[in-house]
Amino acid sequence: MDNRTLNPIPGAGNGLVGRRHFLQAGLGGGMALLTATASAGSREKWMSAPGDGMSEIGNPSRHEAELKRVGVSSRPGTTGSGVSRTPLERLDGIITPSRLHFERHHSGIPDIDPDLHTLSVYGLVDRPLSFSIEALERYPKISRIQFLECSGNSGALIAPEPVQLTAGGIHGLVSASEWGGVPLSVLLDEAGVKPEGKWIVADGADSAMMSRSVPLEKALDDAIVALYQNGEPLRPSNGYPMRLFLPGWEGNMSVKWLRTIKVTSSPSMTKDETSKYSDLHKDGVAELFTFPMGVKSVITSPSPGLNMGQEGLYQVSGVAWSGAGKIRRVDISADGGRSWAEAALDQHVLPMCLTRFRTAWHWDGGPAVLMSRATDDAGRVQPARDAAMADRAVNSFYHYNGVQAWSVSEQGELRNVYA
Amino acid sequence: MDNRTLNPIPGAGNGLVGRRHFLQAGLGGGMALLTATASAGSREKWMSAPGDGMSEIGNPSRHEAELKRVGVSSRPGTTGSGVSRTPLERLDGIITPSRLHFERHHSGIPDIDPDLHTLSVYGLVDRPLSFSIEALERYPKISRIQFLECSGNSGALIAPEPVQLTAGGIHGLVSASEWGGVPLSVLLDEAGVKPEGKWIVADGADSAMMSRSVPLEKALDDAIVALYQNGEPLRPSNGYPMRLFLPGWEGNMSVKWLRTIKVTSSPSMTKDETSKYSDLHKDGVAELFTFPMGVKSVITSPSPGLNMGQEGLYQVSGVAWSGAGKIRRVDISADGGRSWAEAALDQHVLPMCLTRFRTAWHWDGGPAVLMSRATDDAGRVQPARDAAMADRAVNSFYHYNGVQAWSVSEQGELRNVYA
Repeated sequence: MDNRTLNPIPGAGNGLVGRRHFLQAGLGGGMALLTATASAGSREKWMSAPGDGMSEIGNPSRHEAELKRVGVSSRPGTTGSGVSRTPLERLDGIITPSRLHFERHHSGIPDIDPDLHTLSVYGLVDRPLSFSIEALERYPKISRIQFLECSGNSGALIAPEPVQLTAGGIHGLVSASEWGGVPLSVLLDEAGVKPEGKWIVADGADSAMMSRSVPLEKALDDAIVALYQNGEPLRPSNGYPMRLFLPGWEGNMSVKWLRTIKVTSSPSMTKDETSKYSDLHKDGVAELFTFPMGVKSVITSPSPGLNMGQEGLYQVSGVAWSGAGKIRRVDISADGGRSWAEAALDQHVLPMCLTRFRTAWHWDGGPAVLMSRATDDAGRVQPARDAAMADRAVNSFYHYNGVQAWSVSEQGELRNVYA
Repeated sequence: MDNRTLNPIPGAGNGLVGRRHFLQAGLGGGMALLTATASAGSREKWMSAPGDGMSEIGNPSRHEAELKRVGVSSRPGTTGSGVSRTPLERLDGIITPSRLHFERHHSGIPDIDPDLHTLSVYGLVDRPLSFSIEALERYPKISRIQFLECSGNSGALIAPEPVQLTAGGIHGLVSASEWGGVPLSVLLDEAGVKPEGKWIVADGADSAMMSRSVPLEKALDDAIVALYQNGEPLRPSNGYPMRLFLPGWEGNMSVKWLRTIKVTSSPSMTKDETSKYSDLHKDGVAELFTFPMGVKSVITSPSPGLNMGQEGLYQVSGVAWSGAGKIRRVDISADGGRSWAEAALDQHVLPMCLTRFRTAWHWDGGPAVLMSRATDDAGRVQPARDAAMADRAVNSFYHYNGVQAWSVSEQGELRNVYA
């Protein structure tokens, strides 16, 4: 054993390595390394003949065929009301490939002909207007890399006993993409909002006609009419040919298949607002609206389904995000919250985006409980589960952002636990 | 017409709007707008019945089936030596979807079984080592959003007469992704580089065994062994299950299907080095190596194949990049370089990454010549075509980064021109 492993590495209890020593942590750390009879000798069969040629589409490897959205489910009796989730435990970095972005639909995915689809802006405006895709393409645009999270994400954790699902199965109603399109403020300026206009209501072109009210202030601040996701046109399951995108706010306000925007003097109280998404407290009082999503994080590796191998050094990695802005720091515990070490953050820490955190952990082969706790640049700290549950009425499951704990057994198996 | 259009908007000749007024430029600008009989009345057929349900993979719209890589071609007599290009003119933002990332292969795409593939590090090291994918997954990782460009990109522009291709057809051997993996410095530290080690040579597992020498300084600085592209495992056409990634340096040094790294005392002068990629000057002297790519930009919209509609305001947009660091500014001309206006840059200006620039242009329906000129934060300015050609020997086409000019005819047709 290399003598570097004999020196204690600053961090926290049960083998956690701190942020400053993260990239040095692998050194001499007992990884499963082989001495190579280095190279030139044996050659694998794929080196003996030319491979497949160039193609118009670069598909994933056949060895990754099982990399799919998880937890695909529909409401009983329907085919189009349900969800699919991002397999967070299989991904790295901050971008979610568009094909794996989560879905939440209320009446399936409309098959929209982009040449027939328009966006109408009307209501309390000087000039009601209608925009084709072609017209929108001529307008000034912006693009930003940001997360989108369903307000029902992680709601399975209100159950009295911990459900045994993967990280994506529990938390996979969050994804991050580069969203590109026309600032909604530009279109509202074009229409001319009347002084009495204080809200908008956005309707989708799905057969459920998703409909949500948005304060005018947000619409004029950073809302966009998105045409592009990760560089290319939106996928149908994410609103093709256009969607509203409201950075940091609960997902279903970012109305997919956006068809109309009406400027109003007050919230429209549509069927899709307080019938869902309101947070009921124990005293029976409901908060009608909770727009920005909370500060949150989850360890994606290791996590249930990705079991540990031999004892030794492991990367502990996950994603953190906040509807209020940037992630300031993420702390990790390997002893169920008794001690914490600050994680390293990847280079790109962007506002209202997934932020990748990482630390190194020397697993001694014994039982452990891994946790992550995010802090955002507004100073908000992700609450422990008890605090996140404290004031919830029975079955009130929206906007859950409590700390996730994964237990590690002596056999290296990971499980969802309440700790 | 709105009186705002009667006020001159600061910018440059032939209708260009400057950076500061970009987002205001659409106002009253004569866009193809319709007065809406706003909403609620007619409903499209896709609103009358539930749409498709959730699925494991979110595919692109059937209306976008023609969005593919372009210029797919092989060297005569081969199936696996050639290129395909990113359709830059169809994309927005900075991320290239992995399925549309350009390809350049020398003997096709090896069908690698990730369970059998290893990376060996040997040569002038204390401990020759071999790493499986599973072992690499336990190491500290990083991720970064950065461009990759083939050194032969845009080489068609050395032709005496301008070729008539799309923006992607000419410049589409550049793409940008989030690349995630283990810093090569971590693996080299693990092996222990001997004092006489000054270079590495990286070999691929393709049947052509791509082989390139890299100075040790770069290998220890920001090189990574990439396992992830845009959040998911690399696509086979981009090196699955692992590739070298050298930020900002000519593409083929980022050896795909990475199999061995040998530490050496000098460049190995492999078959894939100076037999290609060296720049021959008019005096017959060749520069053996040109590692960092130059500062460069191209207007992607409008561009050939995306013709103009009616006169009026248009967004002019494109991408800029530099192997030296960040893009500092991009200037746009609509009069063939006589006057220039500074473009707006999207929020994410990242080092060694594509940077999206945009400006607004009031096209008066007359002839015009659009150009973009990038400046990086090292102060390097993209050269005019004449300067980029000045010292090239006949048929010396690597590392071309001259300013691209697109002419606009009175019919709104765009063409590649030398201006």
